[in-house]
Amino acid sequence: VSTRSPEQIEPLLYATPEDNADIFYYGGVLAPDPLLAFGCGGRRVAVPNQLEFARVRREGRFDEVLALEDWVRQADAAALPPPRQTAAVIACLAQAHGISGFRVPADFPAGLAMRLRELGLLAEVVEGPFFPERMRKSDAEADAIRAGNAASAAGFRVVERFLRAAEIRGGWLWHGGRRLTSERLRRAIEIALLERGARATQTIVAGGDQACDPHGRGSGPLRAGELIIVDIFPKVVATGYHGDMTRTYLKGRPSEAQRSLVETVLAVQQWAIGRHKAGVDGRLLYAQVCERFIKAGYTTRRDNGVPVGFFHGLGHGLGLDVHEPPRVNPSGGRLRAGVVLTVEPGLYYPGLGGCRFEDVVRVRRDGPEMLSSHPYRWQIR
Amino acid sequence: VSTRSPEQIEPLLYATPEDNADIFYYGGVLAPDPLLAFGCGGRRVAVPNQLEFARVRREGRFDEVLALEDWVRQADAAALPPPRQTAAVIACLAQAHGISGFRVPADFPAGLAMRLRELGLLAEVVEGPFFPERMRKSDAEADAIRAGNAASAAGFRVVERFLRAAEIRGGWLWHGGRRLTSERLRRAIEIALLERGARATQTIVAGGDQACDPHGRGSGPLRAGELIIVDIFPKVVATGYHGDMTRTYLKGRPSEAQRSLVETVLAVQQWAIGRHKAGVDGRLLYAQVCERFIKAGYTTRRDNGVPVGFFHGLGHGLGLDVHEPPRVNPSGGRLRAGVVLTVEPGLYYPGLGGCRFEDVVRVRRDGPEMLSSHPYRWQIR
Repeated sequence: VSTRSPEQIEPLLYATPEDNADIFYYGGVLAPDPLLAFGCGGRRVAVPNQLEFARVRREGRFDEVLALEDWVRQADAAALPPPRQTAAVIACLAQAHGISGFRVPADFPAGLAMRLRELGLLAEVVEGPFFPERMRKSDAEADAIRAGNAASAAGFRVVERFLRAAEIRGGWLWHGGRRLTSERLRRAIEIALLERGARATQTIVAGGDQACDPHGRGSGPLRAGELIIVDIFPKVVATGYHGDMTRTYLKGRPSEAQRSLVETVLAVQQWAIGRHKAGVDGRLLYAQVCERFIKAGYTTRRDNGVPVGFFHGLGHGLGLDVHEPPRVNPSGGRLRAGVVLTVEPGLYYPGLGGCRFEDVVRVRRDGPEMLSSHPYRWQIR
Repeated sequence: VSTRSPEQIEPLLYATPEDNADIFYYGGVLAPDPLLAFGCGGRRVAVPNQLEFARVRREGRFDEVLALEDWVRQADAAALPPPRQTAAVIACLAQAHGISGFRVPADFPAGLAMRLRELGLLAEVVEGPFFPERMRKSDAEADAIRAGNAASAAGFRVVERFLRAAEIRGGWLWHGGRRLTSERLRRAIEIALLERGARATQTIVAGGDQACDPHGRGSGPLRAGELIIVDIFPKVVATGYHGDMTRTYLKGRPSEAQRSLVETVLAVQQWAIGRHKAGVDGRLLYAQVCERFIKAGYTTRRDNGVPVGFFHGLGHGLGLDVHEPPRVNPSGGRLRAGVVLTVEPGLYYPGLGGCRFEDVVRVRRDGPEMLSSHPYRWQIR
């Protein structure tokens, strides 16, 4: 088989497709076990174990599917423990396919990388995106992300139904004869998502000061008159693509300070969405958002070591991963046509509370294409 | 700070606690971003970014929590791209803590490992379990796994309710005026799990020949008179521990061949469960299971390249990962007291169908401690 150039460097992946977007993107098949896959002159080769063989052949978009067990025998590697066995198999495959070395992604397992290096087969560990083309989304991918956001929106409708129906007793929210908690709302959201074929983990329902920790999920009873951040980022099971949207709510009557906080974040978010256009400098856009917050009187600083104000990025790529390149933050680059980004400014001040609104756009030459849609009615009486 | 020996080798982790059991085991905190953590003379140190700082300090079991941003500044690494930046920060932390090198797990990211190696800080990539103590489960961990299996059992009750209520029309199962599909059953199971605070992905509901692909999830309408494998392996959200159980069903009347297949698998499973005792040779146990199947007339072979018979392991470790060491298969070792294992023999013959029963035991000196419980009534009229 080896009629190729002696310097043939090919991509190599070894990861669990269910957890790893690159190998799912490459092969198009979900599987719960690590899968070995590599390129060979533009062709895609998979080497699944026999549990996965039939499925990978049927569902994947590989040009060639080889049985791992055959190559373990051929490499005479059956008695070797895992990383050595896999390295021996890869060496055998490389020889049979005339491949002189592999490039692997930065998150490739170090144990296997070290073995390949010993064998002289590790040509490059690619830092940054392994498949940069993943950043630019096709129309089909944009539709899949839209479907993810439609699931998020279904989650917000559940939240709004609960909050409308909730009674206020002694400052707390009650629903169905019990206190309404973050956990109950999260569960109701995640069930509604499942019913739509989408799965969410770590859905955020955080009220009051809890919402000032932007990654905290929230727990315990919710209060009237406090800002509640709800951030829903489901994965659509059938496609693997995500939605990612955030809304902020308040049941009861907001204070002036709360109203001002929410209106500021919302105005900045809407302004920032409108600025998403191919060629725009992402770092500058981020700086302009910071400036707008400062001008509105919202500074970013540390209070006793705890960051307050606007202290996370403006947005991130969204697709097969919830967080993927590019980023819109102090080290971001120019926005390119086709990238899909969240737009999610937020402000967080313990004592007052947190507020974030998040939508998703595809960047186009003429401006943003909205991939998410849900009202911003944050006050619920 | 550096009054330690010049040859101080410490564990180093860099992974997302939500996806990586080792770092969750080490630090006890779930987080959706990669977290840097290392040991220092028996103390555990975490270096979260500011989004995670408050949560890691509050929820984690680290002895020291340092702010990543401070160390990025101190390492003068703010302008470096991700793997270089992280490597520079680690080098700075190592110097300040008197650490001369790190040992990292086999799944540590290769990009970062290569950078650490260039800096002379990569002492060892550990092949095999990074925390071997994860294999031996405490009583609290056994209880957490029991709770996972209780969620699985709740899923089986949903399946049985559906199958009992289903009507047979023209050989197909109907429920609620529609055909009953794998997808509907899976959704109903996963909703029932969520209601119990457990989350399942890739739940298997596979009928007929689909069930002969042991990792296939199953899709489309289900038939009367076909074996349906249901494999439910949820993660309990509050603890991170899993359940993992399988039952096989048949709605309608089984053929003699189906009955014999199911009874054989069930008898072998019950026999194998009883053999789980500290000191038993796992490889031998696996071989004995194979032998029992052969004696009962069920051979394992390839038909046109497709494996049939019993062609997967007898069991695997269960805990923070669904699949974790040890394994009970041709390369398994002796069973040790405290390990938690699935016991899941199965037989698969396209045309006839597939059958698997799976329970979970903790290995003790005096025999198996059952961590799962649900009836084996497989015929549903």
